[in-house]
Amino acid sequence: MTAKKKMAIVVGLACGAAFLLTLQAQQRPSDGPRYTNGTNLVRPTDYREWVYVGGGLGLTYDAARNPQDPPRFGNVFVNPSAYRSFMQTGKWPDGTVLVLESRFSETDELVSERGRYQAKLRGIEAEVKDSRFPDGWAFYDFGNADSLRDTAEPLVAEVVARCVECHTKNTAVERTFVQFYPTLLEVARQKGTLKPGF
Amino acid sequence: MTAKKKMAIVVGLACGAAFLLTLQAQQRPSDGPRYTNGTNLVRPTDYREWVYVGGGLGLTYDAARNPQDPPRFGNVFVNPSAYRSFMQTGKWPDGTVLVLESRFSETDELVSERGRYQAKLRGIEAEVKDSRFPDGWAFYDFGNADSLRDTAEPLVAEVVARCVECHTKNTAVERTFVQFYPTLLEVARQKGTLKPGF
Repeated sequence: MTAKKKMAIVVGLACGAAFLLTLQAQQRPSDGPRYTNGTNLVRPTDYREWVYVGGGLGLTYDAARNPQDPPRFGNVFVNPSAYRSFMQTGKWPDGTVLVLESRFSETDELVSERGRYQAKLRGIEAEVKDSRFPDGWAFYDFGNADSLRDTAEPLVAEVVARCVECHTKNTAVERTFVQFYPTLLEVARQKGTLKPGF
Repeated sequence: MTAKKKMAIVVGLACGAAFLLTLQAQQRPSDGPRYTNGTNLVRPTDYREWVYVGGGLGLTYDAARNPQDPPRFGNVFVNPSAYRSFMQTGKWPDGTVLVLESRFSETDELVSERGRYQAKLRGIEAEVKDSRFPDGWAFYDFGNADSLRDTAEPLVAEVVARCVECHTKNTAVERTFVQFYPTLLEVARQKGTLKPGF
């Protein structure tokens, strides 16, 4: 083989590698927040494939709720890149999206009369860490399951004030209830990012 | 450019592509069951990054349990490749691993006195679909959180008989409680893979 032919093959290999790496980078979608109009959040449709960090039953702070109504499950999912970052640092990176999914609970007499399992979707909310917002965080409500919005505006200032108050006074790490996310709680403890009192 | 040079570049590109695709395939770890001694299951350590399919509170079938004890949460995670396959077919592929994680529940008076959230790990069990087993499925118990085993033998025949009985009579799809996994339940309904009665 001539030197020129060898060079041509080497160039070809390099081009092939560069082409495929570019293709791979393009195919890997960012899992961070997607906005329309700058700050309206597009509802993540694949959040059920994100990382589940924790949940509870009946953990509502809806004071108007009738205590006789069946309790609801809350499931919290976080975008994988933010999860990986938290596991290394104990803090949330810019671009963190936490989805709070609310589901009705039901009982099943076949397995256990007293236990409750997760049933139909009730609604979807989200909390986003983005340094462009005044507080660094924004809160979104995509509404009830029967009329879910594809995009949501950030909650208005008066509502956010209540979100921020509760998510400041009662949260273990930054604006998030890491005390309810047991695997993250352990990491935050090791990294020293828990607020005093936790 | 001569025809030979062009050909050399094309060959180079093809080689580069093949090389990178091979590399990518090698780097992508299989998320299916890993065994020692043929059938002893290695406990998956990354299952919290798998897909969460559902869970419940107090859904125990432990008849010996004191009903006054605080109920436990059960979280079910499935390996991502099996999840993707189920979402397309409504059935579990060979190599499905379902991890059942049990967690203690606690109350939090800051947010809600009546609600319960997930706390410390209690134990880990797994169910694997593998055509090498007589029933096509095997059940594993990795024990309690304070003494988790790194590998577990398949549960012995007498115990498995009870597992299979309950996981046959009461399950919505194959040997699995898809009736408790709301997003999968919808897919199984669409694909017509639900057992009669569900």
